[in-house]
Amino acid sequence: MSEVPPATPSPQPTAPTLAVIGGGQLARMLAQPAIALGLPLRLLAEAPGVSAAQVVVDHTVGDYRDLATLRAVTHGCAVVTFDHEHVPTEHLRALEADGVACRPGPDALVHAQDKAVMRARLSAMGIPCPRHAVVATPDDVARFAAEGDGFPVVLKTTRGGYDGKGVWVVGSAGEASEAFAAADAAGVEVLAEEKVAFTRELSALVARSPSGQAAAYPVVQTTQLDGICHEVIAPAPDLDPQLAHEAQQIALRVAAELGVTGILAVELFETVDPTTGAGRVLVNELAMRPHNTGHWSQDGAVTSQFENHLRAVLDLPLGDPRPRERWTVMVNILGGEAEVGSLYAGYPHAFARDPRLRVHLYGKDVRPGRKVGHVNAYGDDLDEVLDRARHAAAWFRGDLGEDSE
Amino acid sequence: MSEVPPATPSPQPTAPTLAVIGGGQLARMLAQPAIALGLPLRLLAEAPGVSAAQVVVDHTVGDYRDLATLRAVTHGCAVVTFDHEHVPTEHLRALEADGVACRPGPDALVHAQDKAVMRARLSAMGIPCPRHAVVATPDDVARFAAEGDGFPVVLKTTRGGYDGKGVWVVGSAGEASEAFAAADAAGVEVLAEEKVAFTRELSALVARSPSGQAAAYPVVQTTQLDGICHEVIAPAPDLDPQLAHEAQQIALRVAAELGVTGILAVELFETVDPTTGAGRVLVNELAMRPHNTGHWSQDGAVTSQFENHLRAVLDLPLGDPRPRERWTVMVNILGGEAEVGSLYAGYPHAFARDPRLRVHLYGKDVRPGRKVGHVNAYGDDLDEVLDRARHAAAWFRGDLGEDSE
Repeated sequence: MSEVPPATPSPQPTAPTLAVIGGGQLARMLAQPAIALGLPLRLLAEAPGVSAAQVVVDHTVGDYRDLATLRAVTHGCAVVTFDHEHVPTEHLRALEADGVACRPGPDALVHAQDKAVMRARLSAMGIPCPRHAVVATPDDVARFAAEGDGFPVVLKTTRGGYDGKGVWVVGSAGEASEAFAAADAAGVEVLAEEKVAFTRELSALVARSPSGQAAAYPVVQTTQLDGICHEVIAPAPDLDPQLAHEAQQIALRVAAELGVTGILAVELFETVDPTTGAGRVLVNELAMRPHNTGHWSQDGAVTSQFENHLRAVLDLPLGDPRPRERWTVMVNILGGEAEVGSLYAGYPHAFARDPRLRVHLYGKDVRPGRKVGHVNAYGDDLDEVLDRARHAAAWFRGDLGEDSE
Repeated sequence: MSEVPPATPSPQPTAPTLAVIGGGQLARMLAQPAIALGLPLRLLAEAPGVSAAQVVVDHTVGDYRDLATLRAVTHGCAVVTFDHEHVPTEHLRALEADGVACRPGPDALVHAQDKAVMRARLSAMGIPCPRHAVVATPDDVARFAAEGDGFPVVLKTTRGGYDGKGVWVVGSAGEASEAFAAADAAGVEVLAEEKVAFTRELSALVARSPSGQAAAYPVVQTTQLDGICHEVIAPAPDLDPQLAHEAQQIALRVAAELGVTGILAVELFETVDPTTGAGRVLVNELAMRPHNTGHWSQDGAVTSQFENHLRAVLDLPLGDPRPRERWTVMVNILGGEAEVGSLYAGYPHAFARDPRLRVHLYGKDVRPGRKVGHVNAYGDDLDEVLDRARHAAAWFRGDLGEDSE
């Protein structure tokens, strides 16, 4: 029978307290393996009641752009990690000077914060990337297009974009004004990139510890809608084993050479080499934290990306990243346009229809286009698994009527 | 990329808040699927910093024997559930009169609180139990022994025992005085039971919802040490399918006829019928909450007992209880006799030796014999899985030297 806890206070065990900056769903999902592993977390949340603040007892509300706040939250913590990549580099350096290990550290993280820095570094490493150039004027954009296959060209602010924000596809130099205006307003630059004619998008996730141990998850196929991750299939169906190996090696090499600690996600374009006709991968983006393209691992891998992020940043030996199932599919639940009420109201149908469905909700208000949860499904038959996951996500989004099957 | 949470407060979603009474490891482990499902918990903890109080934001410290405290904690909650079975029946009835649904309710829970009530009810249902009688004097014990196979006889206080406490095996009526003294001191009775010559112990877990939906986990083999659950193998190796079916049917029938909501664990003796020579099962104990013999399901079943407990008490459709793996083994981590220091110090070796190991620590101080965590291992080869789980648990307990492999 259950032991009745003692009537006297029980002090925390001597596991180190891990500071986490940012109260979004990634921090929320870190809390689950932290409970299992007995790891105390201390959270800096942006506002009361945000996703992770609902589930981490030791949390403070404050601004991650304020160094004094960061110092107060990380006081007494040996290690700090992040829900997002927006903490200013100078603050990270100050924390490291205080003796708090930032994982990932500022020298690595800048490559996930600044796309121009990332492109320069990866190109210097000989890692295949789309053709790119930092541009300062519409004339630069026209020149960049002329040097390649012409328009359309992709423009990105070098810093601050996410989920499709800060990205423009322009058909002429004249259309570039919005990107330059946004960059000017934010005090950042504009990066021009060729618009890659990809066959599909892939993602290669690795965990890496300060000691240099690394674990590579299987390469997955991702589908974006409006610049937002929509669906992930693990592993990527029909992927050439050579290309899968190459993608994993890119991720492992980037993690090692940039000194990444924790999870690194490398988003890739799969495309066809125009000269040889062979398949190849180009790096699209880097993220240095648990990533939407790794959520499948919560139910489909031996060790989830969230547990391995914790283990990596604490320099504990990493868990096995291999899949437990032939196929695992993740589909995001985005807030719908319609007033859908509580996501909770979706449970009776979703659970009754599919007793094997795995649901992850983030405790966030539903707003159109906002990521409010995801579902995972796994099994041997990819079509069946896709159908189950897609149906459930559409149901929670409110896209299906009561009569839908 | 991760969405930056909004700068304005985000109210909780409209999922119902579930009250949980008791701050032990079972409540702690309920918190993990509650995070995934977006279910807010409100906890009554026995003391600051107990296992579940470390991980449930909305918690109060107070005495579960005090009705005013129970009323304050459950105020505004439609449903209350329990980490242990010690809340007084009259308080449960008062909460129900207030409109709070107790799951399980007092009429069911009394069968897990009072062994005499349980034995009477199961016997009336025709469910096979050890021979038993309520005894008031050593003479009664002598008479009970004489009516059966003589001594030894098992004596149990009818209420309040757990983990081997409140249980005595006596070789004569004269040895019964300790049991009667303990029962007198606690104001409870003594139940005498035949000492069953079991071949092994089994456990049948089911989840049942107020609507009457039920899900049966595979029957597992359990090994006790000093009255405390030590090791669980799921499913029970070489169990006669007929007997497995019978055990599941007993659990389903008990859950339905007693009106259990949430998880019901039926601990069973597997024994041999002395007249027919056929295998049979006898009910040993009932528990109405997630149970130590179901911890394997966290990593070995499609839906863990903790998630299904939440779904059951909220009357949501239940998740698939089937195993994901051929074999899953759970071994408890008990506090050792030696000063072992922090359990955290066990991670480097345990994780490096076995990257597939699943560890669950409870955030509790290590004390001799105290349950402070458990490990799960799974795979196709039972001997290998047993070895992995036993080694890891022994390592965390501090039973292995540094040279051990």
